[in-house]
Amino acid sequence: MANEDSYNWTHKDLLDTKELSQEDLQHLLDLAAQFQVINKRPVKKVPTLKGKTVILFFVEDSTRTKTSFDVAAKRLSADTFALGRSGSSLNKGESLKDTGLTLQAMNPDVIVIRHSSSGAAEYLAKLLPASIVNGGDGWHAHPTQALLDTFSLRQAWSNNFFGKTLLILGDIAHSRVARSNIQLLRKLGVNIRLCAPRTLLPAGVEHWPVEVYPELASAVRDVDAVMCLRLQLERQQAGLLPDLSEYSRRFCLDQKHLGLAAPDVRVLHPGPMNRGLEIASSVADSPHCLVLDQVAAGVAVRMAVLFLLTQCREGRKNAPD
Amino acid sequence: MANEDSYNWTHKDLLDTKELSQEDLQHLLDLAAQFQVINKRPVKKVPTLKGKTVILFFVEDSTRTKTSFDVAAKRLSADTFALGRSGSSLNKGESLKDTGLTLQAMNPDVIVIRHSSSGAAEYLAKLLPASIVNGGDGWHAHPTQALLDTFSLRQAWSNNFFGKTLLILGDIAHSRVARSNIQLLRKLGVNIRLCAPRTLLPAGVEHWPVEVYPELASAVRDVDAVMCLRLQLERQQAGLLPDLSEYSRRFCLDQKHLGLAAPDVRVLHPGPMNRGLEIASSVADSPHCLVLDQVAAGVAVRMAVLFLLTQCREGRKNAPD
Amino acid sequence: MANEDSYNWTHKDLLDTKELSQEDLQHLLDLAAQFQVINKRPVKKVPTLKGKTVILFFVEDSTRTKTSFDVAAKRLSADTFALGRSGSSLNKGESLKDTGLTLQAMNPDVIVIRHSSSGAAEYLAKLLPASIVNGGDGWHAHPTQALLDTFSLRQAWSNNFFGKTLLILGDIAHSRVARSNIQLLRKLGVNIRLCAPRTLLPAGVEHWPVEVYPELASAVRDVDAVMCLRLQLERQQAGLLPDLSEYSRRFCLDQKHLGLAAPDVRVLHPGPMNRGLEIASSVADSPHCLVLDQVAAGVAVRMAVLFLLTQCREGRKNAPD
Repeated sequence: MANEDSYNWTHKDLLDTKELSQEDLQHLLDLAAQFQVINKRPVKKVPTLKGKTVILFFVEDSTRTKTSFDVAAKRLSADTFALGRSGSSLNKGESLKDTGLTLQAMNPDVIVIRHSSSGAAEYLAKLLPASIVNGGDGWHAHPTQALLDTFSLRQAWSNNFFGKTLLILGDIAHSRVARSNIQLLRKLGVNIRLCAPRTLLPAGVEHWPVEVYPELASAVRDVDAVMCLRLQLERQQAGLLPDLSEYSRRFCLDQKHLGLAAPDVRVLHPGPMNRGLEIASSVADSPHCLVLDQVAAGVAVRMAVLFLLTQCREGRKNAPD
Repeated sequence: MANEDSYNWTHKDLLDTKELSQEDLQHLLDLAAQFQVINKRPVKKVPTLKGKTVILFFVEDSTRTKTSFDVAAKRLSADTFALGRSGSSLNKGESLKDTGLTLQAMNPDVIVIRHSSSGAAEYLAKLLPASIVNGGDGWHAHPTQALLDTFSLRQAWSNNFFGKTLLILGDIAHSRVARSNIQLLRKLGVNIRLCAPRTLLPAGVEHWPVEVYPELASAVRDVDAVMCLRLQLERQQAGLLPDLSEYSRRFCLDQKHLGLAAPDVRVLHPGPMNRGLEIASSVADSPHCLVLDQVAAGVAVRMAVLFLLTQCREGRKNAPD
Repeated sequence: MANEDSYNWTHKDLLDTKELSQEDLQHLLDLAAQFQVINKRPVKKVPTLKGKTVILFFVEDSTRTKTSFDVAAKRLSADTFALGRSGSSLNKGESLKDTGLTLQAMNPDVIVIRHSSSGAAEYLAKLLPASIVNGGDGWHAHPTQALLDTFSLRQAWSNNFFGKTLLILGDIAHSRVARSNIQLLRKLGVNIRLCAPRTLLPAGVEHWPVEVYPELASAVRDVDAVMCLRLQLERQQAGLLPDLSEYSRRFCLDQKHLGLAAPDVRVLHPGPMNRGLEIASSVADSPHCLVLDQVAAGVAVRMAVLFLLTQCREGRKNAPD
């Protein structure tokens, strides 16, 4: 448990959940809980990051995540600037290095980057004095998604993770969300099961600290939570799936499966959902489903991340009310 | 006339002009007049909606209306977030329901929605606690456009509507602007005439509280105002019009027509104008034309709408200076 | 040197560097230096333009310049609104005049316009009460780029321009950056050399106050600065260049050329750079290269421009700290 008097956040960047100690995590989630309260007030804004510049550099498209960061930054009173591939000069043949240096020259405090190449965020973090937040890089990591999932489960489980079992269901091979969550939740003592068609399991999964189940009915038995992943429809075109209806018949989470899980099983989904494909509509609409809690948690967690990266490196420790 | 001491705005949403009582309308337009004054100050900003979140969810493209709402919201110190079709997850197959619930999870105060389906705004209004403003839905309604038109006429006519005659000219069949204006201005005692080619008149127009004229020269006689509608050039491709020059010869409002109208006739146009097609350039540039007043009114009226929907439901009644 | 007590900025608009007196220039660059300091503070924001509306109307695409203006405006606490070609109604056939009048009706304080037609900014400046900033019009002018280049050289040269020699290298024919810089730097007493393939020299260059060199090796001899221009790759498709590798062999600035220049030669580039085409990577990364100083200068100079155009016309003279 963090001792608030002595605790110090020491990370310039947030690149991966790996780098977070238990104490960092505890502190970050506590802070997010404070921001969660602010987000429900009539006046959802604090002056904490006034005069700070946050660049949202989303080379890979994702308005959902970008808007969440944008809301988070503005509720902290930061100024935000969004750039995409066409907005940057990357599409004029400029290198990531030159684009990064150009952004740095405008003196931003934080650059949130989403990029299709694994390691893009880390590359910028080494190159630039600004704080870098990895908003998702290739199949590698998506730390704020894992943090918001953890935050949602923490609320549901009253901060009691140890010995719980989570099933991750679906396209794990191409999922940075799965990778970051496994990393983070294992650290908190959660047992992880995976269930997916063989073609959507990552290479080397036998070395991961997880149990793999080929069949959903056995995978879901007694689990405390199921994280459904979005099935990208292009996977079928790539020949990784014979048939979407076959996929749905075998891997769509439905009410029958929930009956096999723990009575108060929680269901997570990073959104947007393909109802009827990876998750049954009745499950999505059931009280077990945390998908909207996750969206709300996303804003709060990102506020905590932006706050910690900017304020705390200036030597301040406490969040304002 | 509204008694300010006892009056209360009671609408969570603004979906249609139908729902507004005379008292609501009077109050809203009075408030817009106050914001009009603020918009002409050197410092065009009041702290009224500081800490409020306004989402501009424009599934159908319209930067003109979106910018007007954006200016209105920021002049009230709200934070704004713009999402389009590609920005939302609608283009990933997500339903309007799931998109709406996702937006709600970020705790917005107001969602302005423009959508090609009639009823989309009403659907969200029933689903979500946030206030919904209909920014135009299909051919159904566009209440803030009708309110800004009414505001412009109110200034021109010194708040004296009863017995005035307005001619609406052009593509009425596909116009939510026409529908919302007819609804609102009839309530204020304005007589409405319509003039359009038969193919651009709505089905069932014989049941509307209007007079229909096949010919512009007789339609315009003695009217106090003409509202020209923009002719969407795709109507010709759809076979609804034989020929644009034929259309322009018969339905383009020119100086000769103004000579037949009341001496101080006012001309409105929702913009952007096709000069020479539905409105002669000389008319557009004449002092009769209110098109720029309408744009200015748009910001003021939308400030009033945002203010009433957000502040007043928190129990406050007065606009700040 | 400006006498601060008596000096008054008297320009409603910034259209071209031609209109700036030595005193204006001195004052503007002094002010930019003050804003440069603010941009390096932890809180990079002053309330100077709170309640001001700045429209970024970029009909021609340029996120780099647009973002720089956006950062500049928000650091002065102005509200910004971005419109592009598709965002405006220009793509619905509306004229620049009608679009301009529509924007004006929202009571903006400043409109920054980038447009492919030379003279577009001047046209709006005559039409509208708002202050117009030319963000680049056709091949005509790009005054804030010339100002930021001058600001960067002023820092490098300790405000000592007279008798210095600058070589402008590359596609001068199509460069508004070159035109505006020649105009501004000649006024400060800088000698200008040009070097480019004949097909990329402007018509009538023999009447310009410059020396033209066909060969880079002689052009670069003893110069105090080289400004490399970006080669638009479409020039080759237009038949103006036989071959990019031939171009690079003859006109790419490399270390060997720097050896022929003055020992502390400075290299400028408006960005984004085509490394290996118009500038060698080793030159771009050398301490001689000011490209990142230019980006930082861009924000500071644009803050000064926005400040002078808005505040000073209200009768105030001093920048806040």
